[in-house]
Amino acid sequence: MIKVSVFYPHQPNAHFDMTYYCERHMPMVRRLLGSAIKNLAVEQGLSGGTPGAPPVYVAMGHCYFDSVPAFVEAWTPHASEILADVPNYTSLQPQFQISEVKL
Amino acid sequence: MIKVSVFYPHQPNAHFDMTYYCERHMPMVRRLLGSAIKNLAVEQGLSGGTPGAPPVYVAMGHCYFDSVPAFVEAWTPHASEILADVPNYTSLQPQFQISEVKL
Repeated sequence: MIKVSVFYPHQPNAHFDMTYYCERHMPMVRRLLGSAIKNLAVEQGLSGGTPGAPPVYVAMGHCYFDSVPAFVEAWTPHASEILADVPNYTSLQPQFQISEVKL
Repeated sequence: MIKVSVFYPHQPNAHFDMTYYCERHMPMVRRLLGSAIKNLAVEQGLSGGTPGAPPVYVAMGHCYFDSVPAFVEAWTPHASEILADVPNYTSLQPQFQISEVKL
């Protein structure tokens, strides 16, 4: 199983519409990528390791796929439509990472 | 539900013993923090958003708790013992983040 993570780095006063992200953007991703997505998760950053310290990321989104090829096959035809939706909920530049799920 | 993430930033030639992390360190965390941990996950970084680009993190570990106070209460008595184990699997300096699970 692999996990595709999208990190939105914390910046003071940056805009991130969590409601839009959870209720519009992620459902669109799920609809477009279909059964290739095995699971999906969203988190909102609260703090760093100590309460009160800023979080590294204001938000993180994760999609799980069986394999990297399964992700690439599902993602490629819809990448431009999905990425075009990003300015509708944030001005932040997301970072991407592909990971192998170990535990 | 909250998620405590530990990020190990990718550095060329840095050491990270994933076997020790999964088979020794994380089981120790689970044993020490007990029933306060609701779930636990580990990922190994494969790449950035495009295959071949380095991942942001060589490894990530995540523990889920009911709330920030539940995490703090479970973590505080064992923090020094858990952190003292880090040099046994990596020379990297971990980053920490506490997040609220939204989806």
